[in-house]
Amino acid sequence: MSRLVQKRSRKTGLPPGTAVHIGEKKSERTHIRLLHYDASQVAEKELEDIEDGAVLRSATGVTWVHVTGVHDVGLLDRLGRNFGLHPLVLEDISNTDQRPKFEDYGDYIYIVLKMLHDGSSSRDIAAEQVSIVFGRDFVLSFEEAEPTVFDSVRERIRAGRARIREQGADYLAYSLLDAVVDNYFSLLEQFGERMEQLQSELLASPTPRMQQSLHHLRSEMVLLRKSVWPLREVLSGLERGRSSLIKGDTLVYLRDVYDHTVHVIDTIETFRDMVAGLMDIYLMSLSNRMNEIMKVLTIIATIFMPLSFIASLYGMNFRHMPELDWPWGYPLVLVLMLGVAGGLLLFFRRKKWI
Amino acid sequence: MSRLVQKRSRKTGLPPGTAVHIGEKKSERTHIRLLHYDASQVAEKELEDIEDGAVLRSATGVTWVHVTGVHDVGLLDRLGRNFGLHPLVLEDISNTDQRPKFEDYGDYIYIVLKMLHDGSSSRDIAAEQVSIVFGRDFVLSFEEAEPTVFDSVRERIRAGRARIREQGADYLAYSLLDAVVDNYFSLLEQFGERMEQLQSELLASPTPRMQQSLHHLRSEMVLLRKSVWPLREVLSGLERGRSSLIKGDTLVYLRDVYDHTVHVIDTIETFRDMVAGLMDIYLMSLSNRMNEIMKVLTIIATIFMPLSFIASLYGMNFRHMPELDWPWGYPLVLVLMLGVAGGLLLFFRRKKWI
Amino acid sequence: MSRLVQKRSRKTGLPPGTAVHIGEKKSERTHIRLLHYDASQVAEKELEDIEDGAVLRSATGVTWVHVTGVHDVGLLDRLGRNFGLHPLVLEDISNTDQRPKFEDYGDYIYIVLKMLHDGSSSRDIAAEQVSIVFGRDFVLSFEEAEPTVFDSVRERIRAGRARIREQGADYLAYSLLDAVVDNYFSLLEQFGERMEQLQSELLASPTPRMQQSLHHLRSEMVLLRKSVWPLREVLSGLERGRSSLIKGDTLVYLRDVYDHTVHVIDTIETFRDMVAGLMDIYLMSLSNRMNEIMKVLTIIATIFMPLSFIASLYGMNFRHMPELDWPWGYPLVLVLMLGVAGGLLLFFRRKKWI
Amino acid sequence: MSRLVQKRSRKTGLPPGTAVHIGEKKSERTHIRLLHYDASQVAEKELEDIEDGAVLRSATGVTWVHVTGVHDVGLLDRLGRNFGLHPLVLEDISNTDQRPKFEDYGDYIYIVLKMLHDGSSSRDIAAEQVSIVFGRDFVLSFEEAEPTVFDSVRERIRAGRARIREQGADYLAYSLLDAVVDNYFSLLEQFGERMEQLQSELLASPTPRMQQSLHHLRSEMVLLRKSVWPLREVLSGLERGRSSLIKGDTLVYLRDVYDHTVHVIDTIETFRDMVAGLMDIYLMSLSNRMNEIMKVLTIIATIFMPLSFIASLYGMNFRHMPELDWPWGYPLVLVLMLGVAGGLLLFFRRKKWI
Amino acid sequence: MSRLVQKRSRKTGLPPGTAVHIGEKKSERTHIRLLHYDASQVAEKELEDIEDGAVLRSATGVTWVHVTGVHDVGLLDRLGRNFGLHPLVLEDISNTDQRPKFEDYGDYIYIVLKMLHDGSSSRDIAAEQVSIVFGRDFVLSFEEAEPTVFDSVRERIRAGRARIREQGADYLAYSLLDAVVDNYFSLLEQFGERMEQLQSELLASPTPRMQQSLHHLRSEMVLLRKSVWPLREVLSGLERGRSSLIKGDTLVYLRDVYDHTVHVIDTIETFRDMVAGLMDIYLMSLSNRMNEIMKVLTIIATIFMPLSFIASLYGMNFRHMPELDWPWGYPLVLVLMLGVAGGLLLFFRRKKWI
Repeated sequence: MSRLVQKRSRKTGLPPGTAVHIGEKKSERTHIRLLHYDASQVAEKELEDIEDGAVLRSATGVTWVHVTGVHDVGLLDRLGRNFGLHPLVLEDISNTDQRPKFEDYGDYIYIVLKMLHDGSSSRDIAAEQVSIVFGRDFVLSFEEAEPTVFDSVRERIRAGRARIREQGADYLAYSLLDAVVDNYFSLLEQFGERMEQLQSELLASPTPRMQQSLHHLRSEMVLLRKSVWPLREVLSGLERGRSSLIKGDTLVYLRDVYDHTVHVIDTIETFRDMVAGLMDIYLMSLSNRMNEIMKVLTIIATIFMPLSFIASLYGMNFRHMPELDWPWGYPLVLVLMLGVAGGLLLFFRRKKWI
Repeated sequence: MSRLVQKRSRKTGLPPGTAVHIGEKKSERTHIRLLHYDASQVAEKELEDIEDGAVLRSATGVTWVHVTGVHDVGLLDRLGRNFGLHPLVLEDISNTDQRPKFEDYGDYIYIVLKMLHDGSSSRDIAAEQVSIVFGRDFVLSFEEAEPTVFDSVRERIRAGRARIREQGADYLAYSLLDAVVDNYFSLLEQFGERMEQLQSELLASPTPRMQQSLHHLRSEMVLLRKSVWPLREVLSGLERGRSSLIKGDTLVYLRDVYDHTVHVIDTIETFRDMVAGLMDIYLMSLSNRMNEIMKVLTIIATIFMPLSFIASLYGMNFRHMPELDWPWGYPLVLVLMLGVAGGLLLFFRRKKWI
Repeated sequence: MSRLVQKRSRKTGLPPGTAVHIGEKKSERTHIRLLHYDASQVAEKELEDIEDGAVLRSATGVTWVHVTGVHDVGLLDRLGRNFGLHPLVLEDISNTDQRPKFEDYGDYIYIVLKMLHDGSSSRDIAAEQVSIVFGRDFVLSFEEAEPTVFDSVRERIRAGRARIREQGADYLAYSLLDAVVDNYFSLLEQFGERMEQLQSELLASPTPRMQQSLHHLRSEMVLLRKSVWPLREVLSGLERGRSSLIKGDTLVYLRDVYDHTVHVIDTIETFRDMVAGLMDIYLMSLSNRMNEIMKVLTIIATIFMPLSFIASLYGMNFRHMPELDWPWGYPLVLVLMLGVAGGLLLFFRRKKWI
Repeated sequence: MSRLVQKRSRKTGLPPGTAVHIGEKKSERTHIRLLHYDASQVAEKELEDIEDGAVLRSATGVTWVHVTGVHDVGLLDRLGRNFGLHPLVLEDISNTDQRPKFEDYGDYIYIVLKMLHDGSSSRDIAAEQVSIVFGRDFVLSFEEAEPTVFDSVRERIRAGRARIREQGADYLAYSLLDAVVDNYFSLLEQFGERMEQLQSELLASPTPRMQQSLHHLRSEMVLLRKSVWPLREVLSGLERGRSSLIKGDTLVYLRDVYDHTVHVIDTIETFRDMVAGLMDIYLMSLSNRMNEIMKVLTIIATIFMPLSFIASLYGMNFRHMPELDWPWGYPLVLVLMLGVAGGLLLFFRRKKWI
Repeated sequence: MSRLVQKRSRKTGLPPGTAVHIGEKKSERTHIRLLHYDASQVAEKELEDIEDGAVLRSATGVTWVHVTGVHDVGLLDRLGRNFGLHPLVLEDISNTDQRPKFEDYGDYIYIVLKMLHDGSSSRDIAAEQVSIVFGRDFVLSFEEAEPTVFDSVRERIRAGRARIREQGADYLAYSLLDAVVDNYFSLLEQFGERMEQLQSELLASPTPRMQQSLHHLRSEMVLLRKSVWPLREVLSGLERGRSSLIKGDTLVYLRDVYDHTVHVIDTIETFRDMVAGLMDIYLMSLSNRMNEIMKVLTIIATIFMPLSFIASLYGMNFRHMPELDWPWGYPLVLVLMLGVAGGLLLFFRRKKWI
């Protein structure tokens, strides 16, 4: 639940545009990876901090600055001044409790989205905030912690093959978005498998433990939905916004990511439906279970209560009970009891209880 | 469930526009059926592979290339280059986990939709992806596996009768769409019958087994909905898009398929309502059942507990129990017991329990 | 349920625009009633078939052709050719599983809607398809079976009074729509009464039989909704479409039917809410019922189990049980039993169980 | 429920525009209150019927005709002819089963809405139809029965103070709307109090009687919603319609009533949420109750069954039962029984059942 | 609940535009804090009442009048006349049961919103109405009671640092809005913690007391939603309205508050989902609990009923019962009993009941 709201109290009362790190500090150090590339060449550099802004920009091609760790507010500030970012953008980057959104500032576009990992140790998924800022010839990307899904993009740039080297900053930004959305699919696969397994267990024999699994699954779905749903608006906004920063060629690709996002959302909604269905099944199983238990109790009670009564009857100490003296009294009572029990069993069979 | 999400992990990290087959490989070989026709003539050919692109296009009339099996990425690539398809289109054709959509690339329109079969052996429905690409004078259609609903369209072309021979590629594309949507209706018929049967069984006497049938029905409906719902947007988009590829005459027909799709969706929604109703009925039956069981138990216990108590009372071994020595003691106690039992039965009749 | 989906399988694979009768054949013979009228005169005729088209149209005034029975595809075809109808229109007329819709073909407007009857014998409502086609000077109406709600309109035309004789074909089409929608209100009245009755029965004492009534009511509502809901779009489309076939004067009247339809839909939604409320009441009653039953069982068991135990205690055959020899042993035990029973009754009274 | 649908059957088959009174006749006589006013003077008159139309209109200022009782169709007709009303308007005024709506006829605007009273004797709310027609210099208002919320408006006109005397017919119409909407708030207050009371009763101790109160509350809410919801469209339509009959100054006031209506709707929705919450609480209480009852039963049965068994054991009449002859047999058995009972009580305490 | 509807009855029947205080009187005295500032200077003043309007406005810079306590209608009136406010605005300010909204009066914009406190003593949240009116060079803000979230804004103005001193009245109005919305986040944090705690308690062991906590949480969420939801429209309206009073620079900031509000609403919806999930968990736990209880009862009854029956059997007083005289009769019966009990325990173990 703490994953749903993060402590913002530290920020209350501060003027807007003040960059304060909000959220858990997920990374110890801040890494900066600098990459300059155009169709013909690639240059990479790792920085610990930004002192000299001149190093950041190159005359031609695309500059990609990737920052891991957003708690170093001073560094963000220096970076922001280098690329002329609005204070609100810097505030939003360091505040990791943002709703996915995009903002078009004319010279650059700012995009926030959520990367989702399945927490390694537990089964919880963890949401990490990813910010992307891109202008005509630069892309800044910000991640909270180390393990990055952007490595494959970096590989492709290094490899020199394919379109990415010939395209501009907008295509790089698209590639990053695509990497994040692709990642959702692998998460959904895991969910699908867990749900499938839970379903077959549930249909086989429900146990109280599954109730917690169901609740867990449902909560995860709520978090997933909260993270992915706004992305739809972001992408359709980007596509329809027709900023001059995005070339027509890239728009086709953006539409593709948009389609993927809609597909992810569709699947999440379907999963919600499935979980609701599983919950209904579980509730019905509980009721069925109860009926089974009650049937056993009722059958036992209904058979033994009359028998015990008959036995008690002949256990009475009245002086004048003629049956007690009959030589065939005992066998007759036994036969009577068998008859009663048999009759009741027949009655229950008729009622399809046994 | 695995029918809801397909493994895409193979694709994660690859550059966009890379055609990789995602999904189950449903067909062993790839078939290509080539059909050239105009108002006066029809020519058919079966190909194993595409080596010489020239064979594909004819000077006049409409060319229809139907491909069964989408796992041969190389073949798709060669085909794509012949008709000038965008890499993203080829990627989407071979990735069989697409959401139904259409994309207007100017020279051609790309449509993805889902064909639904009721799995022959089990009662599961299976979704198969169908892609249709059509330009001014060609239609490409892609299916995952053999049994095709497009045979009737092919028959009509061969037969030479009716409009289809006189119309262009847009009308052929419409005919394919129409064949797929028509197929949904036969699926809905089957669902309707299963639901009807389940309903009458449920109203007669509910068994725990029906719970699984209900869940199954509901899950199928979820899958059905996921496949058909987006088709509505596809068709209204095609109709409103007013691409120059679609003639006004064909628009009337597209509106008709659109109406059918809306009808299908309406019916699915109605079915969902019905299944929800059946689930409520089932839950109520369980509760009613429980009440019945409890009533039997309570009646038996309420009658025999006092009787047994009276019997135990006179089974006590006190030396001074005057009743035991009465000559009419035993018959009196029997009368008392009959009175108690009768009174309780009357009480239950009053309460309408029996 | 079979009322929700009709067999279309016969049609699968046929080219579009092929008129094939789909649905139950509700009428044996096909009747054609021809009516020519203008402000000054009325001429009526009954036809068995259409051989000579000339008979259908008159030079002045409005021509109304009403066809009962839509399974005679040949006749529809001849009629269609006389009035220049599109093949898709003829297909839709004879296919009685259409969703209510309207289509503007320029020269004429085609409207499909559903007439609802409460099935005479059973309590089921039956949906019958009504098609209306109207042009500048003609109205064609198609019904599946005999008993017609259009008689009142015919009466009004014959009577010569009122606006209808002075108005054109659009007003006649409106009058037919109005007659159908008016009919919905009388159906809703019946529903209202059934629901009211069920509610008072339910609040008095719920029985398992009501569960079926509730389910039945709910299913009917689902069918009703499916039939009426699309009519809203039809009418608002007609009103906003501003076809040249509809005069401004008639638009005011169309807005009125539209308002009535919205009112019908509102009422259906309200009824759905009420049925859901009744179901909740029923479920709560079941739970309350169960609580009542369990209370009786628990009270009886809690009182008699300790008493029986005491009696059994003094039924033991130990040689050394001093109480058995006390002269006041038996009365003392009886007093003890009364005390235990009284105390437990007091306890239950405190708990407000009795 | 009869409050949800009114008998319209009387009207079925009549031509549209025929004024027929539909609904309960709530008032015996028809009253007409005539009021002429401008900034300087006020003239009031009471009429039994309208014979001479000339009396109705004055040369300057605003004319307000308020009619109580809408069942006198003849009178409505005469009034309608005097002010040039469309037959459909007259039909709608006398048919008290209208959905709130407004219609702009150019020269005048027709508004229907629902006044809600809490039925004096019972707790039911009663909906009464109010019609308002206003043109450039006149306002006609129609109510079904006597007790009027418009008295305060009349008082304000008489008092001569404030804006109303200086403003035109549109401001008077607004004042009437405002009076009706203000009335909704007092109704909501009563609902709020009833719900608050029910909630505290429910949280204290739920009884089966509350089930009916909940159902009643919910049904009232459904009716309330049905009456108020369409008013939103009415008012936003009036505001956006920008009829020349409504001056810019009055638009500000209309926006205010609109805001109030949205507030009323918000509150109704909130109440629906609250009632749903109360129902859930009630259901949970029932389940909790059942658990409590079952616990008592189980504890009693679990303790006394083993004890009774031990007692029965030593009540057996075997000749060779050595324990029976032990001098300490009886006390030992008593100690054993105490031990068993104590052990079970400890077990239940561990399980937190007692 | 009284927090949902406030008594408006006092107002019913009064002419619109009459300022009457509606709501609880939360503050004894009315405070007025006057603040004049521009980039270079700040002047503060505290007033008890407004007698001389001249004091309120300064020639240059921004004037901020903050009023605490809105029950002094006379004072509001004098203030309103000084700044030329519409009577409806004054009415809405003093009526504390407003729905959040904004109204653009050309010369000034009027905004109503709700501040939420968590009631200090109890766990209830309390909604307080905040009104903001801003024109070209003035901002009026109204609060019901003392503890103000606007202190931080005042501090920033005094401190002289940052943008606020250089910006106009629109930026000040934005800052006030921002302060209110920031406050929502701290409330959500508290909710998140309470929900988290309740969840872990619920998953550990559900008690009937939690039912009330759940209901409470749910009710609070309903109130929260009602207060925050309309704010979305307010802010998007302000942003899109493009009043000349709001400079382009400030629009960027307004968009930021808008994003925050959407985030708050998202989180509330997520919380509602979570509460619904917790309720389901609670209901399932109740059912599971019941199953557990019934199992215990059934196991005990099923084991001891047959045993007691056997014991009763040999407690019968028939003269001819050969078993009674067997020397091994008693031990044999004991063995039989052990066998029965053991068999039943095995049976239950098989059924996984124990």
